[in-house]
Amino acid sequence: MCRWIAYTGEPIFLDRLVTKPAHSLVEQSINATLQYKDDGSIWTTNGDGFGVGWYADRSEPGLFKDAMPAWNDQNLHELCAQTKARIFFAHVRASTQGGVQRNNSHPFKYKNWLFQHNGDVEGFSKLKRTLQNEVDEDLYPMIRGNTDSETSFYLALTYGLQENPKHALEKMIGRLIRAQEEAGMNPDLSFSASVTDGENLYTLRYFTPGATMRTQFYTQDMARVVDVGGTAKKSEWPDKAVVVVSEPLDRLSDYWTPVPEASFMTVRNGAVKIEPFTPQRV
Amino acid sequence: MCRWIAYTGEPIFLDRLVTKPAHSLVEQSINATLQYKDDGSIWTTNGDGFGVGWYADRSEPGLFKDAMPAWNDQNLHELCAQTKARIFFAHVRASTQGGVQRNNSHPFKYKNWLFQHNGDVEGFSKLKRTLQNEVDEDLYPMIRGNTDSETSFYLALTYGLQENPKHALEKMIGRLIRAQEEAGMNPDLSFSASVTDGENLYTLRYFTPGATMRTQFYTQDMARVVDVGGTAKKSEWPDKAVVVVSEPLDRLSDYWTPVPEASFMTVRNGAVKIEPFTPQRV
Amino acid sequence: MCRWIAYTGEPIFLDRLVTKPAHSLVEQSINATLQYKDDGSIWTTNGDGFGVGWYADRSEPGLFKDAMPAWNDQNLHELCAQTKARIFFAHVRASTQGGVQRNNSHPFKYKNWLFQHNGDVEGFSKLKRTLQNEVDEDLYPMIRGNTDSETSFYLALTYGLQENPKHALEKMIGRLIRAQEEAGMNPDLSFSASVTDGENLYTLRYFTPGATMRTQFYTQDMARVVDVGGTAKKSEWPDKAVVVVSEPLDRLSDYWTPVPEASFMTVRNGAVKIEPFTPQRV
Amino acid sequence: MCRWIAYTGEPIFLDRLVTKPAHSLVEQSINATLQYKDDGSIWTTNGDGFGVGWYADRSEPGLFKDAMPAWNDQNLHELCAQTKARIFFAHVRASTQGGVQRNNSHPFKYKNWLFQHNGDVEGFSKLKRTLQNEVDEDLYPMIRGNTDSETSFYLALTYGLQENPKHALEKMIGRLIRAQEEAGMNPDLSFSASVTDGENLYTLRYFTPGATMRTQFYTQDMARVVDVGGTAKKSEWPDKAVVVVSEPLDRLSDYWTPVPEASFMTVRNGAVKIEPFTPQRV
Repeated sequence: MCRWIAYTGEPIFLDRLVTKPAHSLVEQSINATLQYKDDGSIWTTNGDGFGVGWYADRSEPGLFKDAMPAWNDQNLHELCAQTKARIFFAHVRASTQGGVQRNNSHPFKYKNWLFQHNGDVEGFSKLKRTLQNEVDEDLYPMIRGNTDSETSFYLALTYGLQENPKHALEKMIGRLIRAQEEAGMNPDLSFSASVTDGENLYTLRYFTPGATMRTQFYTQDMARVVDVGGTAKKSEWPDKAVVVVSEPLDRLSDYWTPVPEASFMTVRNGAVKIEPFTPQRV
Repeated sequence: MCRWIAYTGEPIFLDRLVTKPAHSLVEQSINATLQYKDDGSIWTTNGDGFGVGWYADRSEPGLFKDAMPAWNDQNLHELCAQTKARIFFAHVRASTQGGVQRNNSHPFKYKNWLFQHNGDVEGFSKLKRTLQNEVDEDLYPMIRGNTDSETSFYLALTYGLQENPKHALEKMIGRLIRAQEEAGMNPDLSFSASVTDGENLYTLRYFTPGATMRTQFYTQDMARVVDVGGTAKKSEWPDKAVVVVSEPLDRLSDYWTPVPEASFMTVRNGAVKIEPFTPQRV
Repeated sequence: MCRWIAYTGEPIFLDRLVTKPAHSLVEQSINATLQYKDDGSIWTTNGDGFGVGWYADRSEPGLFKDAMPAWNDQNLHELCAQTKARIFFAHVRASTQGGVQRNNSHPFKYKNWLFQHNGDVEGFSKLKRTLQNEVDEDLYPMIRGNTDSETSFYLALTYGLQENPKHALEKMIGRLIRAQEEAGMNPDLSFSASVTDGENLYTLRYFTPGATMRTQFYTQDMARVVDVGGTAKKSEWPDKAVVVVSEPLDRLSDYWTPVPEASFMTVRNGAVKIEPFTPQRV
Repeated sequence: MCRWIAYTGEPIFLDRLVTKPAHSLVEQSINATLQYKDDGSIWTTNGDGFGVGWYADRSEPGLFKDAMPAWNDQNLHELCAQTKARIFFAHVRASTQGGVQRNNSHPFKYKNWLFQHNGDVEGFSKLKRTLQNEVDEDLYPMIRGNTDSETSFYLALTYGLQENPKHALEKMIGRLIRAQEEAGMNPDLSFSASVTDGENLYTLRYFTPGATMRTQFYTQDMARVVDVGGTAKKSEWPDKAVVVVSEPLDRLSDYWTPVPEASFMTVRNGAVKIEPFTPQRV
């Protein structure tokens, strides 16, 4: 279980979303409200590491990750206060698969691509070797940690993420389901994930029947959302800004739109397109 | 805000209290139930570091501290599973004063003494220099971090902790109150602390009117408490065992006795003595 | 490149070998003298993490590992000053394969077994998947990091380390060499490793022609070695003590015996047996 | 003992000085060549933490510090590859006074000011309280660590660093010397330090007779220095660039000018002014 945000639009300082809002991502690292445990109680703490990935002056993104909680990390606050980006991801982790170490923090990076994930692939430790054997030979050595999330990303890259993101992610989910079935399990996985090449932002929301639901929201009305008091002027809004989140950055706002189940979202140049997402057997 | 436990009795493995009980100290690092914020809500997370201090084959205790959360720390689990001690302290931290760094984790050690604290000295950053100027010249260079807790320990040492613990702690609290008054504040501090020389265990519970209450409990019936199922045999109980905690290690048990407000407790050879605690002006 | 020590004998405090000698393992973490770079200069620094594993009151060993340098780690000093063990391993790391993270620090543990390694398997990142596919299905999920060393340990376990250590290690080295050959490389690996089940200590020294040499020494005359001044009395010596090291714990002593190339050493009850080590094709 | 660099000029990516040159600052963290121990041997390792401070779009600088070695820190490499700055400081630490913790890593920041130091104030732990009592009441609470360097910075701020840097630094050194004398010591301190307000760069090189010398060099010919192969074109050079370092970023170049002993240097708009530095009694 984890929380994440993704931004695309005119360059803004990262702190506008990561540290400053009333229910910022850093606040969600210690007081999350919309993620549930199997027993129905709320999982408030995402203290097993964090990461940010951002695109500024280079085609490849920068990456800053640590295995500490986000809430008291001075480096994270400093970086977010100084850094402007046109696209950025930020993530706080509650570990389900894989130990608490920097390499297991999200986002994951491959060339100009970033990937981050909230969710779980049930039984991953038993499926890991089978799934990693699917990964392209040239990509495999780049897997550094031992999470279901990172392996999923490299599967998607193997299935053509760079050419056709929707198709590749549908194949990746299909492959995970097949692996669970072949291991004698009922399909049981949940994915609220985002991925970007530094130009377009794609997100995925999918879970098998019975799996714990993962929320996902977006807004094209960022200034109002972040400026809880409601005094932001139109001119202060970043142009063509779209924000996608695990849970809203304020606890009140009506300006967030839930992303439907089994959806694939494409954000490009301020426009949002939502399509059905259907896992493909590989 | 923090949680701690203190044990004295026949040597036991640390894991019996720190990691194994249903509501062990490590469980309290992520799901504490009895500490309150100023708004009355519960402060569940103590993820800003941890520490254990233990007495085994030497007169000076061992100390293992880190600035990471306790809940996923493999080193802590390993150490507690291997180490037996006749007296030990363990602490999980939620920082109020002083940054998240190893030197600020409790317990604090001076020669054969250990000290740990749950509570707060309001306005400490403004009082720090005045208070540190009170500390004995030979002791001052040993202060390594910047918490109110560590400075309080060194004040108590300055006031004769090694000769008369109760008296020294009463002077220490009195001095903190005077410093607050002289800075134009109302007295506002809370202390649930324990201290030991490796032979005797002393605890203190005190808070000024209006300060957030800190709970403290003890038991002389350890086996029943830890063995929630109730199958422990008398012969498995460690002899002369006394456990003092911030909150009980199970959520059910009737075997815990609350320590009254404004109390000083001495535990020696399995016997418990509780006396009134009255701050002394210095 | 790394440095390690292994001890077996009457229980002693770990500090007698890890922190106190003139050229202790901790001193070797910053001032190693006997490891060479390819250009012939000396590789002095082993600052990419450390670990100790020790057998005390349980059949399974305790494990304490971190990704920080050993030389300033207060926890390591405290643990070694308090802990007595009848067998212990200690290791300081200079990373060659695999990132600097706690899971990649040595020793590695499986049930009652410990393993630690100084050396390198050239081209491991390209061989990793092939080699991990050899690992037994039940063992594979326990691999936590991404070093050549840990994979080698799990290969040896797969080949029967628990039944016949010498045979299993010979197969492991043979399998590594075959993997290099099948990838079109010349065999290029170096191993100075130790392994124990908590009763017997086994070490291995082997390197292919042209690989950088790794030193290994042992002594049965521990007190004289550690007590550089030469004042230790016979009665202070731990009984049946044998120490194996990457480099001597003093820089002067004549009391260390080099382990020959291509050797397998068994230490049991104070006695040392050295046999030729011959890689076996698998 | 430590190594540092300071840059001022047209904005450049930090990696051009911190990670890319043959003898970059990161390389100096493990293979420094120009710092000596008291016995005349070379102190090669600066592995007790690192930090960078940079001025980009805000008047206050960003700060990124850690207590790990720089040589393998992926975050540092990422940050330096992505971040452009018109002024930046970078520092690798070998601890002399104060523990290895993030708060003790350089640079230190106060409002728009940065400070970093290579050197030592002998006997600081005994002088610390006296010196900290000199620090202005409003500044004192901002001291977070326990190094001689940070206290020196706050002393300089107390003596008017923001109004007259040279004068304030001369008073600071004078005050340190007086403290040593009053404690019955011979004056024994060494300072190679840099300080900036985000507009001007000031450096100081001073040591008392008998103290270990600290080197300091500068260049106004940056491109040739960094581009060891000598193929950089004039047009690629950042305008008005000045670099000051503890030791040159290549091991060959003739393009570095040693800063004389007892000097105060001011760098403004590409111009360098060097004045005598004379400690003032306070």
